[in-house]
Amino acid sequence: MVVTIIGIGLIGGSLALSLKETGLAHHIIGVDRSPENLRQAVALGLLDEPGHDLAEAVRRADLVIVSVPMDAMLTVLPQVLDAATDRQVVLDVGSTKALLLAQVADHPNRARFVAVHPMAGTEYSGPEAAVPGLFRDKTLVICDAAASAPDAVARVEAVFGRLAMRLVYMDAQAHDLHTAYVSHISHITSFALALTVLKKEQSDQQIFALASGGFESTVRLAKSSPDMWVPIFRQNRDNVLDVLDEHLRQLQHLRDLLAAGNDAGMYEQIQQANLIKKILK
Amino acid sequence: MVVTIIGIGLIGGSLALSLKETGLAHHIIGVDRSPENLRQAVALGLLDEPGHDLAEAVRRADLVIVSVPMDAMLTVLPQVLDAATDRQVVLDVGSTKALLLAQVADHPNRARFVAVHPMAGTEYSGPEAAVPGLFRDKTLVICDAAASAPDAVARVEAVFGRLAMRLVYMDAQAHDLHTAYVSHISHITSFALALTVLKKEQSDQQIFALASGGFESTVRLAKSSPDMWVPIFRQNRDNVLDVLDEHLRQLQHLRDLLAAGNDAGMYEQIQQANLIKKILK
Repeated sequence: MVVTIIGIGLIGGSLALSLKETGLAHHIIGVDRSPENLRQAVALGLLDEPGHDLAEAVRRADLVIVSVPMDAMLTVLPQVLDAATDRQVVLDVGSTKALLLAQVADHPNRARFVAVHPMAGTEYSGPEAAVPGLFRDKTLVICDAAASAPDAVARVEAVFGRLAMRLVYMDAQAHDLHTAYVSHISHITSFALALTVLKKEQSDQQIFALASGGFESTVRLAKSSPDMWVPIFRQNRDNVLDVLDEHLRQLQHLRDLLAAGNDAGMYEQIQQANLIKKILK
Repeated sequence: MVVTIIGIGLIGGSLALSLKETGLAHHIIGVDRSPENLRQAVALGLLDEPGHDLAEAVRRADLVIVSVPMDAMLTVLPQVLDAATDRQVVLDVGSTKALLLAQVADHPNRARFVAVHPMAGTEYSGPEAAVPGLFRDKTLVICDAAASAPDAVARVEAVFGRLAMRLVYMDAQAHDLHTAYVSHISHITSFALALTVLKKEQSDQQIFALASGGFESTVRLAKSSPDMWVPIFRQNRDNVLDVLDEHLRQLQHLRDLLAAGNDAGMYEQIQQANLIKKILK
């Protein structure tokens, strides 16, 4: 099939690689507001063809993937649906859903659109960050599937099933709530941790020398792009604030136990935190 | 040489593997207060011989490694030094140093002791968590080297150099301060993150389905043992509190920017956090 990918960054580029590798796409057209990204994506072999007219690139495709940051998504997705016909399936891969789905709820081509969120990524961005096999054995959330045409949902299921993803179905509100817990909050804490260490450690050399694997793993997400994350935090603000307030309470509680020298209390809290072992192998 | 390892957990066991692999140790005696740990360590081939008498195991060794949790360390290390002669080199691999070094400052055998901290580990514990190659290309901090005999320091440098570790020299106060920044605080935030998610997410199934690599990496350290970490937090309390208070300020600032819808402020903070890229590749 012919696939048009709008926004050729980490996710769009990695999808291009996987769609080619599995033979699902025989021709990939890419559209990006950055000519440099587009040039790189062609040079890296992610695309067969740079597309310069959005509407034309949509009309020529069987499958259209919109993988732009969430602020751009709110305007780009309606433009894509404007250009779509009954022949196309359109999907977004955005990290927040409730606002986006409200935005296109009344669009005449709403049924051609399937909202999905592949729970996969890295802290890097841009086409050169694209990696093969990024989606294998990861989860794909399909949101509000009942608002999409059955043939469109079936095509999306077939594509991502072929990429070896686990399919999970959820409404947009539940998606935004759960991703605040298990993805967005991790980024906030990682940004705050990086800011803390950069502020307290005057010597970069000491951080570099002493940082062990534990520090690197907790602070890795702090390398993530503000272009991607500011719109996510804005669009999922209420849920993120709710989880962040709970996190602040938990941290403050640990701080109070530590300050009071309450080792038994600290021990008990760590034992409770260890229960995460049961869930994450 | 003959090596006695006191405390056969993740670090003691991994050292046993590396000392054997490099041919540095031809015979390893292990001592552990847990008979089950000792039995497992022998079964796993980490040890050549279980030692049942601490003083005898010390006297028979060329090199004695004390790798017990920091609370036990305060009593075990003096006992080891009591049994040592000019023939032995004794080292600890503990995560905090100031209190321990004060504890043995006036010991008659202080010069036989070298305080080191290998900046390596995983979130797992016990002899079955031992892994080969754990120390390769990691940093070894040697603390207050001037208080140790030159031949003892030279032997330690030769051993850990052979394990391909980078050697860094620091006084105990500086060590405890820097490790609070780049190791201890990561564990506190990870414990708090696990507690937050476990409290907010009633359904384990949702966490499991949605947790992506980002969440797993920030919460990985929350699997760490309270037996190891409560004594570390207690012994490095002032430094950890200082860093934790800064972390709480940074998190609260991000929270306020988010609540106020101050996207420009959030963008700027994330850009600053991104500077960690310059330090951690």
